[in-house]
Amino acid sequence: MGCPQELVSYIREADDYCIAVHVFPDGDAIGAALALFLGLTAMGKRAAVYSKDLIPQMFDNLPAVENFKPITALNEVDTTNATLIIVDCNSPERAGLPEHAGLKAPSFKKTLVIDHHVTETNFGDIRWVIPDYPATGLMIYFLLKSLDIPITTDIAINVYTSLAVDTGTFRFSNTTPEALFVASELIKAGVKPVAVADRLYNSWSEARFLLLKNMLSSLEIHNRLAITVITQDMLKDTGANLEDTDNFVNFPIMINSVAVSALFKEVDTDKWKVSLRSRGEVDVSGIAQRFGGGGHRNAAGFRINGSLPNTKQTLIKSFS
Amino acid sequence: MGCPQELVSYIREADDYCIAVHVFPDGDAIGAALALFLGLTAMGKRAAVYSKDLIPQMFDNLPAVENFKPITALNEVDTTNATLIIVDCNSPERAGLPEHAGLKAPSFKKTLVIDHHVTETNFGDIRWVIPDYPATGLMIYFLLKSLDIPITTDIAINVYTSLAVDTGTFRFSNTTPEALFVASELIKAGVKPVAVADRLYNSWSEARFLLLKNMLSSLEIHNRLAITVITQDMLKDTGANLEDTDNFVNFPIMINSVAVSALFKEVDTDKWKVSLRSRGEVDVSGIAQRFGGGGHRNAAGFRINGSLPNTKQTLIKSFS
Repeated sequence: MGCPQELVSYIREADDYCIAVHVFPDGDAIGAALALFLGLTAMGKRAAVYSKDLIPQMFDNLPAVENFKPITALNEVDTTNATLIIVDCNSPERAGLPEHAGLKAPSFKKTLVIDHHVTETNFGDIRWVIPDYPATGLMIYFLLKSLDIPITTDIAINVYTSLAVDTGTFRFSNTTPEALFVASELIKAGVKPVAVADRLYNSWSEARFLLLKNMLSSLEIHNRLAITVITQDMLKDTGANLEDTDNFVNFPIMINSVAVSALFKEVDTDKWKVSLRSRGEVDVSGIAQRFGGGGHRNAAGFRINGSLPNTKQTLIKSFS
Repeated sequence: MGCPQELVSYIREADDYCIAVHVFPDGDAIGAALALFLGLTAMGKRAAVYSKDLIPQMFDNLPAVENFKPITALNEVDTTNATLIIVDCNSPERAGLPEHAGLKAPSFKKTLVIDHHVTETNFGDIRWVIPDYPATGLMIYFLLKSLDIPITTDIAINVYTSLAVDTGTFRFSNTTPEALFVASELIKAGVKPVAVADRLYNSWSEARFLLLKNMLSSLEIHNRLAITVITQDMLKDTGANLEDTDNFVNFPIMINSVAVSALFKEVDTDKWKVSLRSRGEVDVSGIAQRFGGGGHRNAAGFRINGSLPNTKQTLIKSFS
């Protein structure tokens, strides 16, 4: 894949960079930002990486991850000669920039956007956005190649982590020939796929695993609808928290007779956040919208108030 | 990767083939055999595929899978002018050939072996065995390329399934640059990675999922040892069977504090088959041997008789 020449030329010239990821950063944002950070510093540039939210523990060992600073630290440096690059997002809100936290807005020489999400705004002096591209990390890989930066093992591990997270280690429909070809090159550059997979899939806390076990105990199947529940009591009993439920809603979809999985998460007494996942052609975005929520065909959600038995019944009826 | 010239020349010449997979065939054996079958028939050869055991339901939709015949059918055809090719195994016993079922031994013109397991015997007129190669299906891919056979979508789906199964969709340590490069080519040939992954990971029977849920309810953690149990009662309650427990022992390894996962499966009253899995450098083969079993560093097993509490205690003590 080719990169915009304007972007490549700009980065060859400018010397000082602040890289920011989106709020609640995932492995694609983090891996992409760190690969870019490592590439820019290898070119002799000044660069720093910022995140509004904490880096999840599973990414603690990524090369160069120790360089992340809280985004509020931008208020303590002179950024007037620096270039802001936001990665894996394309608006200042989504990047959690300080002015959105009530602090002063840092001013930058220029702002660049590198992202694979659908565009929300036209923020950025140079925008490189490819909606539905497999991973932002893959765009960074091609950018570094265009800049003639050698792909070190440390860069490769970060890019591979991006790719692995956003393609579900090559299981999702965004697994393109290009994604697999680059993955192949990254292994030649020193990535150990089993180490990446272990970090992503086999580094659960015991509390999280116990929460999954408890959630599965709540499983009910009504026709092709699977319902599971996470209550505040379960969180207390296991010592886990709601962030630990990431991906839990996908487990019941493993069952071949289940078309839709609904996970009820108790955010407060009788207040529920419901995540919906569906298989293939089955659309759950319409149902989520009917309850005032939203989302995509295969992943949507909404909030609902009421007792658990009543809210469950309401959802079950909406499917019949 | 290059193929032995002797094998390529032989296949160009001979016209009639019987392909056999190993007993209890997995996705690598089945995908490799079907890719080879499709390639040989595309060359205008006569070919048939045989399996001693049933093809697992999750592979029901693989292209050409309907051609599999029970291996006893070999007794009903004249094989004296046919060439036997055993794939993903390297001994007649492992291929479940009829003489090992007490039937007459079919005689073949020649016997070929294509496999990636450690050699057990020197069976076969032409042997192509590469121990620890990612998948036998990948060897078939290079064989078909050497034979100048176009990689159709149907062949590609079978090879990709082989690769996906044996590398855990590119998560295991056998994920080589070559494996990912070929996967990339196979997607160009028409494979839909999400369809393969759905078949492998999201096609559980409800009974199997309920059994997993019950197994997880039995979880105990003693230091870094996780113990789970499948009893005959659980099988009865869920309608699942012991074959459904394939891979279950890997779930507790998801917990970062767990180094060893032991799954006790009740094969008869007070008779247990124990599967062991370990993380990284932790070796479980020695413990399995101490109980009269065997296996590899990270995957081993043994049988033990006694009450569940006693047998569990015996295992726990052996770790302390």
